[in-house]
Amino acid sequence: MIVVLKANTNKEKKTQLIDWLKGMGLGTHISEGEYQTVIGLIGDTSKVDMDLLESLDIVDSVKRVSETFKCCNRKFHPDDTIVEVGNVKIGGGNFCMIAGPCSVESEEQIVEIAKSVKASGANLLRGGAFKPRTSPYDFQGLRAEGIDLLKIARQETGLPIITEIMNIRDLPLFDDVDVLQIGARNMQNFDLLKEVGKTGKPILLKRGLANTLKELLMSAEYIMSTGNEQVILCERGIRTFGDYTRNTLDLSAVPMLHELSHLPVIVDPSHATGIARLVSPMALAATACGADGLIVEVHNDPMHALCDGAQSLKPNEYDELVKKVNVVREALK
Amino acid sequence: MIVVLKANTNKEKKTQLIDWLKGMGLGTHISEGEYQTVIGLIGDTSKVDMDLLESLDIVDSVKRVSETFKCCNRKFHPDDTIVEVGNVKIGGGNFCMIAGPCSVESEEQIVEIAKSVKASGANLLRGGAFKPRTSPYDFQGLRAEGIDLLKIARQETGLPIITEIMNIRDLPLFDDVDVLQIGARNMQNFDLLKEVGKTGKPILLKRGLANTLKELLMSAEYIMSTGNEQVILCERGIRTFGDYTRNTLDLSAVPMLHELSHLPVIVDPSHATGIARLVSPMALAATACGADGLIVEVHNDPMHALCDGAQSLKPNEYDELVKKVNVVREALK
Amino acid sequence: MIVVLKANTNKEKKTQLIDWLKGMGLGTHISEGEYQTVIGLIGDTSKVDMDLLESLDIVDSVKRVSETFKCCNRKFHPDDTIVEVGNVKIGGGNFCMIAGPCSVESEEQIVEIAKSVKASGANLLRGGAFKPRTSPYDFQGLRAEGIDLLKIARQETGLPIITEIMNIRDLPLFDDVDVLQIGARNMQNFDLLKEVGKTGKPILLKRGLANTLKELLMSAEYIMSTGNEQVILCERGIRTFGDYTRNTLDLSAVPMLHELSHLPVIVDPSHATGIARLVSPMALAATACGADGLIVEVHNDPMHALCDGAQSLKPNEYDELVKKVNVVREALK
Amino acid sequence: MIVVLKANTNKEKKTQLIDWLKGMGLGTHISEGEYQTVIGLIGDTSKVDMDLLESLDIVDSVKRVSETFKCCNRKFHPDDTIVEVGNVKIGGGNFCMIAGPCSVESEEQIVEIAKSVKASGANLLRGGAFKPRTSPYDFQGLRAEGIDLLKIARQETGLPIITEIMNIRDLPLFDDVDVLQIGARNMQNFDLLKEVGKTGKPILLKRGLANTLKELLMSAEYIMSTGNEQVILCERGIRTFGDYTRNTLDLSAVPMLHELSHLPVIVDPSHATGIARLVSPMALAATACGADGLIVEVHNDPMHALCDGAQSLKPNEYDELVKKVNVVREALK
Repeated sequence: MIVVLKANTNKEKKTQLIDWLKGMGLGTHISEGEYQTVIGLIGDTSKVDMDLLESLDIVDSVKRVSETFKCCNRKFHPDDTIVEVGNVKIGGGNFCMIAGPCSVESEEQIVEIAKSVKASGANLLRGGAFKPRTSPYDFQGLRAEGIDLLKIARQETGLPIITEIMNIRDLPLFDDVDVLQIGARNMQNFDLLKEVGKTGKPILLKRGLANTLKELLMSAEYIMSTGNEQVILCERGIRTFGDYTRNTLDLSAVPMLHELSHLPVIVDPSHATGIARLVSPMALAATACGADGLIVEVHNDPMHALCDGAQSLKPNEYDELVKKVNVVREALK
Repeated sequence: MIVVLKANTNKEKKTQLIDWLKGMGLGTHISEGEYQTVIGLIGDTSKVDMDLLESLDIVDSVKRVSETFKCCNRKFHPDDTIVEVGNVKIGGGNFCMIAGPCSVESEEQIVEIAKSVKASGANLLRGGAFKPRTSPYDFQGLRAEGIDLLKIARQETGLPIITEIMNIRDLPLFDDVDVLQIGARNMQNFDLLKEVGKTGKPILLKRGLANTLKELLMSAEYIMSTGNEQVILCERGIRTFGDYTRNTLDLSAVPMLHELSHLPVIVDPSHATGIARLVSPMALAATACGADGLIVEVHNDPMHALCDGAQSLKPNEYDELVKKVNVVREALK
Repeated sequence: MIVVLKANTNKEKKTQLIDWLKGMGLGTHISEGEYQTVIGLIGDTSKVDMDLLESLDIVDSVKRVSETFKCCNRKFHPDDTIVEVGNVKIGGGNFCMIAGPCSVESEEQIVEIAKSVKASGANLLRGGAFKPRTSPYDFQGLRAEGIDLLKIARQETGLPIITEIMNIRDLPLFDDVDVLQIGARNMQNFDLLKEVGKTGKPILLKRGLANTLKELLMSAEYIMSTGNEQVILCERGIRTFGDYTRNTLDLSAVPMLHELSHLPVIVDPSHATGIARLVSPMALAATACGADGLIVEVHNDPMHALCDGAQSLKPNEYDELVKKVNVVREALK
Repeated sequence: MIVVLKANTNKEKKTQLIDWLKGMGLGTHISEGEYQTVIGLIGDTSKVDMDLLESLDIVDSVKRVSETFKCCNRKFHPDDTIVEVGNVKIGGGNFCMIAGPCSVESEEQIVEIAKSVKASGANLLRGGAFKPRTSPYDFQGLRAEGIDLLKIARQETGLPIITEIMNIRDLPLFDDVDVLQIGARNMQNFDLLKEVGKTGKPILLKRGLANTLKELLMSAEYIMSTGNEQVILCERGIRTFGDYTRNTLDLSAVPMLHELSHLPVIVDPSHATGIARLVSPMALAATACGADGLIVEVHNDPMHALCDGAQSLKPNEYDELVKKVNVVREALK
């Protein structure tokens, strides 16, 4: 950590600060320049409150030199992590196609969609059982029953299932779910992160609407600090001033996260845009910039979907998309 | 709800859409203009998926006319709600001064600060026991012990206590806490909202970093739909491109929320700015634009605070702030 | 335009409002619902101030039904516009590769880069002569001399040239430039837009850092309202809370702009990310989602570039990128 | 400037970098740590491209230590600048009340409003003659005639006049205007900044919608680098995801700018909120946090205003606001 003092700093205050830093067990390396003094801190600076330091009268700026994320950091783990779900691999050159409806609505619906997306080439089935909805008056999901229906669809198709958990209390219901999803709104629900980490299951961690890449990685760190390394990161759009799409898909996060971390990174073009006609172009763009997979909403009857019908592809549209994604992947090999 | 169709819409598609809307039990009022057709929907449109409608080929735009929030809506409840905590009143002209450290650290610390802020004029004591931290390696709070220490401070001073709950599982620990705080990161942790609602206790609901006023009100609605009307809204800064302060304090939310809702609205200038020197000017600004109270971080030793020392006022600074706040309130009466 | 009145509106105020609207020469179509009154306005509503209407006590909301942009609107011009620069075509299936240094620095530099990017497959040469810089102390460009050097590079390679104009006063210097660029900071410099429109030359219009798609199209409308239809839109990143890249590239703008307008849409991955290593993945993503071209910074010696070296590709990197772009385009045909 | 190298950096590359830096005439101060090497650069680092350095393989981070803004920096000019317009003073404890219509519409209108706001206590008259409008089809202002009408209003009331200039070419028309305003959209129209600087007149510089405080100060620097120190900064709302108000008023900019710079800082609550009912609360908030003045839109007939009627106060509302502002100022003295 590097602390830059303001010019013409009172000498006594300077000594006081240095003593305080030493009092925290840190070594100090002081370099006096013509216009400023720079203090290099040596040792475990994780307990140092940067904001506090920065707020001091005599301090001009503070810079943390060492990384705050460790488990997910590519520096300490140069090879790509490959997450395995049954015989599906994600990351390290393995591309996953996750598809399914926003909400599980009935056995007929989920089984039909599962069969259809499998036929098109999907290798994981998504479907919401517990739905986080902005309004308490909106459909909140079939809950436990929804999970049971997902299991039936898995039995019928062999596709592993992925579904969102909103709450520690519900964990037992997810015992037989293959991948647990942490939704954008819960990205910083830290207790939930720790608990899902402890299950040892693969976790799909969605980026929050207003979270930086560092915050996303720190949330992955919460999961990984329990010893669970099976984390898949997911970019799904951020909140900006833009008003034509529901969110703004931040695709540069894909190569940037690959640089910072060894974890696989997938993209959700459905929630990012909120508009079915934009899903395919954005899915292709995500593929072209190196995503490790796509999670796409598909519904057999978007007009009657209980939630997010506007962003769902129809089965034939999904089929066409998978073909194009494969063509782009093949081309860029 | 009003649906505007695009110009030159295929007649068959139009009929199909109208039939589909009727199939949902809605009345339709159709007005054909020279350039567009406008369909007014009559009945319970809460099940209609606006995004889906908007995504249809033939639809130009959709507008919801009736309000989606009910319990917290001033239209249906014109008088200010006054939240009562012991003999402290908040809202409807009653101003509350909540103060205390970011984290409870020790009995000595919390009792000393409690006495000090009480002497300055605070009427509620804040202090974090469970701390949501971006990094799993940062101090996470004293947890249950922290709550016990808050109770001791309450006993010593008579100040009711307010502290953050992160998790349904911890609810029993909060049985004897006066006001439960929902932090910004949990504003859309919907299960938590419902459960704290059921306690019947007053709830301080902080606005999320990237949440609109409507979303904040919908989260209040989650709490209030359990029958609990004791909700205090809190503006605490939003995330923008700004980089000089931690967040951007959105003070126009104060009069706007007062217009939309009957609930009291307080402001947290400490988390909004992250910089102690900006707390007082922003607290005065909040007072001047009509806030019903302030929640301010005060620490007897910010240099050694375990968390957010940079934004904490010292007791004497807080004392001075309270005086100025009172002067402004008096002036604007 | 549709005006929705609040419930239980005072009848007299309602009559007053309707009279006022009629006084502006508008027809009114009034529909009284159980909970609200909806007034449809017929006629030229372009003079009606929506914000004013919306601010009235008795008004709940206002919605403009007809489009505010006309010349660039796909509704009134369904076929893609193809911009022609010499024998280079842009739009309507024609892909353009614009490349060159951020700033023109010397004859040797610009000619060498021009030859190199031409050999790789670029068909237009970019290079800044007038540079908008945040700081008055930074290099401001070679100005008139820079334009002369671009012309030399054009003569040597046959590549048409494109360069930014910041100021009406400088127009005469751009007489012999092939495409005029309006930079992001000048997207709403309306006088400049009108003047460049009048030249009849093709205009590359970059989206401002914080401008919506509608605002971008309205700026195109300023140019086109002079009768000049040769406008190329350019997405180059928007300002968000994101802090890993210089800006956030909003690729969903590409298919969305294609839907709203008939104008060609190109992407600038260099300014959007500010990081050379992200330029290629983002360029491929832009290609995959349907962009009509790319504008990429290439420098033969990024370490010594006078401006924006951090985001410049080296000639061999550009060469490789063009190959990949062609592969993706071929694959998606 | 401080350059931190990544751990385990190749020695040869390190030497190469250091040589390159030395080649730019900079001194280097190298400190080898256990985990990283830190290079301190001594000398004129203004030509060093931080982004380029940061993008190098072996570089972890770069930090500029010295300030990039000089003329407007409080460090080098500790006392408040007081801008003088006739006998009106702004800054250094002198509060200014600027008021008037969004657009000048007629002699009768501007004179009537001028008299009215003067009677209420305003000491400068604002009024738009040249109007930057998003749409080319909207009213663009009375232009030269508007300036003439402002002069008549000045003659009638003695109030100095302030009006926006959009364009270098129009400068001669502003010869007899007291304060030139640079609007938000032109905050980075650098040529315009230099030219208005050269007039020596006081300049009101509005913050752009998506500009940081540093960028605002750098634009002030453009003006001041011409030798003109008469600059007034103006916060007028930034663009965020918020959708209830036109923009988000960033009031913490007021104390922050006062800390960074010696220039006066005023606030425009009318454009920031776009809603007349929010103007007074936000004006009072701005006053309470230390603004040096307010610029407020007042119209004698907002319902018929040609532009921005929704955000204009009526004369009696303005009168009431001035009284409250004075009460708050008095209270906080």
